[in-house]
Amino acid sequence: MENAKSSDPNGTGSQYTNGILNGFHPAQQSNGITTAHSPSRGSFSEGGNTHSGGGHSGIENIHHLHHPVVQNNGSPAKRCRLRRRMDSGKKNRPPFPWFGMDIGGTLVKLVYFEPKDITAEEEQEEVESLKSIRHYLTSNVAYGSTGIRDVHLELCNLTICGRTGNLHFIRFPTQDMLGFIHMGRDKNFSSLHTTLCATGGGAYKFEEDFRMIANLELQKLDELDCLIHGLLYLDSVSFNGHPECYFFENASDPENCEKRPCCLEDPFPMLLVNIGSGVSILSVYSKDDYKRVTGTSLGGGTFLGLCCLLTGCETFEEALEMAAKGDSSNVDKLVKDIYGGDYERFGLQGSAVASSFGHMMSKEKRDSISKEDLARATLVTITNNIGSLARMCAVNENITRVVFVGNFLRINTVSTKLLAYAMDFWSKGQLKALFLEHEGYFGAVGAFLELLKMTDDL
Amino acid sequence: MENAKSSDPNGTGSQYTNGILNGFHPAQQSNGITTAHSPSRGSFSEGGNTHSGGGHSGIENIHHLHHPVVQNNGSPAKRCRLRRRMDSGKKNRPPFPWFGMDIGGTLVKLVYFEPKDITAEEEQEEVESLKSIRHYLTSNVAYGSTGIRDVHLELCNLTICGRTGNLHFIRFPTQDMLGFIHMGRDKNFSSLHTTLCATGGGAYKFEEDFRMIANLELQKLDELDCLIHGLLYLDSVSFNGHPECYFFENASDPENCEKRPCCLEDPFPMLLVNIGSGVSILSVYSKDDYKRVTGTSLGGGTFLGLCCLLTGCETFEEALEMAAKGDSSNVDKLVKDIYGGDYERFGLQGSAVASSFGHMMSKEKRDSISKEDLARATLVTITNNIGSLARMCAVNENITRVVFVGNFLRINTVSTKLLAYAMDFWSKGQLKALFLEHEGYFGAVGAFLELLKMTDDL
Repeated sequence: MENAKSSDPNGTGSQYTNGILNGFHPAQQSNGITTAHSPSRGSFSEGGNTHSGGGHSGIENIHHLHHPVVQNNGSPAKRCRLRRRMDSGKKNRPPFPWFGMDIGGTLVKLVYFEPKDITAEEEQEEVESLKSIRHYLTSNVAYGSTGIRDVHLELCNLTICGRTGNLHFIRFPTQDMLGFIHMGRDKNFSSLHTTLCATGGGAYKFEEDFRMIANLELQKLDELDCLIHGLLYLDSVSFNGHPECYFFENASDPENCEKRPCCLEDPFPMLLVNIGSGVSILSVYSKDDYKRVTGTSLGGGTFLGLCCLLTGCETFEEALEMAAKGDSSNVDKLVKDIYGGDYERFGLQGSAVASSFGHMMSKEKRDSISKEDLARATLVTITNNIGSLARMCAVNENITRVVFVGNFLRINTVSTKLLAYAMDFWSKGQLKALFLEHEGYFGAVGAFLELLKMTDDL
Repeated sequence: MENAKSSDPNGTGSQYTNGILNGFHPAQQSNGITTAHSPSRGSFSEGGNTHSGGGHSGIENIHHLHHPVVQNNGSPAKRCRLRRRMDSGKKNRPPFPWFGMDIGGTLVKLVYFEPKDITAEEEQEEVESLKSIRHYLTSNVAYGSTGIRDVHLELCNLTICGRTGNLHFIRFPTQDMLGFIHMGRDKNFSSLHTTLCATGGGAYKFEEDFRMIANLELQKLDELDCLIHGLLYLDSVSFNGHPECYFFENASDPENCEKRPCCLEDPFPMLLVNIGSGVSILSVYSKDDYKRVTGTSLGGGTFLGLCCLLTGCETFEEALEMAAKGDSSNVDKLVKDIYGGDYERFGLQGSAVASSFGHMMSKEKRDSISKEDLARATLVTITNNIGSLARMCAVNENITRVVFVGNFLRINTVSTKLLAYAMDFWSKGQLKALFLEHEGYFGAVGAFLELLKMTDDL
């Protein structure tokens, strides 16, 4: 069976079960950084083959040694740890930079905490490489040709572990991962002695590359643990004062269907449907008690892969744009195409899809459809399949709250509305589809939280 | 919910719950008819637009009036019914010809009973149109350009309702349905006063066409009722002395996986997975007690439709031939492509598919694959999705016997073996996949049985 029970090896993690990690303090400044200047060096995703030579980045780490000398009270490892705590200005927190990374099948998701409460003294003592990272990430919205900062998702004035700052959300294609690792080497990232918390399959796949190329040891974390922890945390801190969660009112009525913010109070049990390249479905009973109910390989990767093949598109954005303009009923065989109307006995409406792509076995029909129709049919097929699976799991697990996350849902209102409709209609209003604003970033946030948690254990 | 409970409005139908409808008598002759000659007229599927003029087929129905005059002992309707019983030589059975029809989304399935025990007297009295139908159907294996008789499935020397004969299995594309109806008109089929028992969506969609064009009234029957009744019947009479049912021994070991006949004794409860253009999944507790658990629109029509789009193929046979030669791992993203190996925590092997078609978002990968790879990936994607859904239903319904039927499985050992593997492997041997030789014909057989049953009610 694909199912497995999981429990957190780190204990209860009560750190944020109360909804706030060391408190959420709205602060004075919250200007989203927008000044964009592209440095000539240091872009981490200039394509899949950024293997530039290392050791000449011009970034030095000698400032690192200017920190107050700590008492020599133990082993070299302990001294090192103590010194590192100083880097973020206080004990019991890790040294800056604070990152969390989720290396998925298609996209790498990176969250970065930018401290905004740096004192003049701190600024002076900050090592150059650290400053360089901070300035590079926060003063750009695009990195290389494929890295993107989702500025609209930035969380401002978050207080975490006693530091106040902004949380940034960055993504780039996994195929550019080696370029990123080479940049880590070139920037001498290993000299920062930070722990790199990473989750997703790529944390395993690229572990050796991080070690051999950039001299970096990854702290590998399970992706489903991270997903749940990240989700509960982001929901608890809220989205700059607004709810992280939303649903669709009148989901079964396309004319009057509208997005509405809502609270994920008392979220358990929830069925969590994570739609990335593939799909995982979890029953979540508490922060650390969940099981993977099932999954399907027909996910976001299937949508994009098929769309590229069928329409010649190159990107997710392009695929969605086409899908928005298409009509899937030219491609799919509907119940009414077979029955002439509804299949009443089993409550199947004439407009329901009986056979996805079922019209495409006819040359005549193939000749009469557009690429947009094909993109739409692909989107509807993948979405409905996930919706149907999720609904079945929800019924079997006796859970009414179905939370959909993952980057497949990014800028994808066709799918979110379709999922909301499917949950509502087929359950006669018993199931509720919920969505979260930070769609695909929860794994990375969960990894980021582990970094902060680990320091508690020092 | 898509579920619905059903019970047979016709009562217990004990007729074949004992496994045999009026007994199964192996008889003397069993030569499969093979003489193939194509008549210049009368092919019922010469393409989708066979709207030839009617009333000039040369087939007369005056012999119909030569039957012994029955006693005028009631209403005209009752007299008519009595007269009809005579046509098949005895009371309490319908007049010949005996047909059952299942008009699906892609294919029309037709079963035809050819009486082999016709006496000389009967032969003389047989109306010309009836004789013409019999000769046409039994002396050909192909009808028009698209109709095909599955000779290898023929059931020989079957005794049904006191008559002994052969049961023939014929299929043609649903898009040729109007051609078939026009032939019915041209052959003056309505003069035979037979009841045309039909199931499948097309029984509803084409009802009016049958009435208006060919003056034929369909007896419409529910497709899932017919499916179950037909399946239980064919299993009970056996396949010319051999079992109807088979499974794969060593399903989890591709090297040693072998087809083995088996008995479907004590078949309840069974999970019945019908893979036609779309898919229906039923929990069957007894002949007349079942529910439709769920379904998916990703079925045989999706496989063929997508294959036509992706590879330029035109037929199911062509698509399967290509799929047999392809390698789906060039198209799909596997767990090891993302993790570098297994995702051990949740028991996902590196060789498992993580994202179907997931590699196809990369132009480089798209440029390196073959049409055969795409056909294989399409087949594997659709099959695994159905397998996964079926497994989940089986677990939820607490049923270990999973019977796969439908024309998607015709000449499709890739899928049958994959389903057998999926059931065995993922359930750790708890679930057993079963298959039936007459794959897609059970609905038509069920409709045929209704014809015989209806006569009992006269």
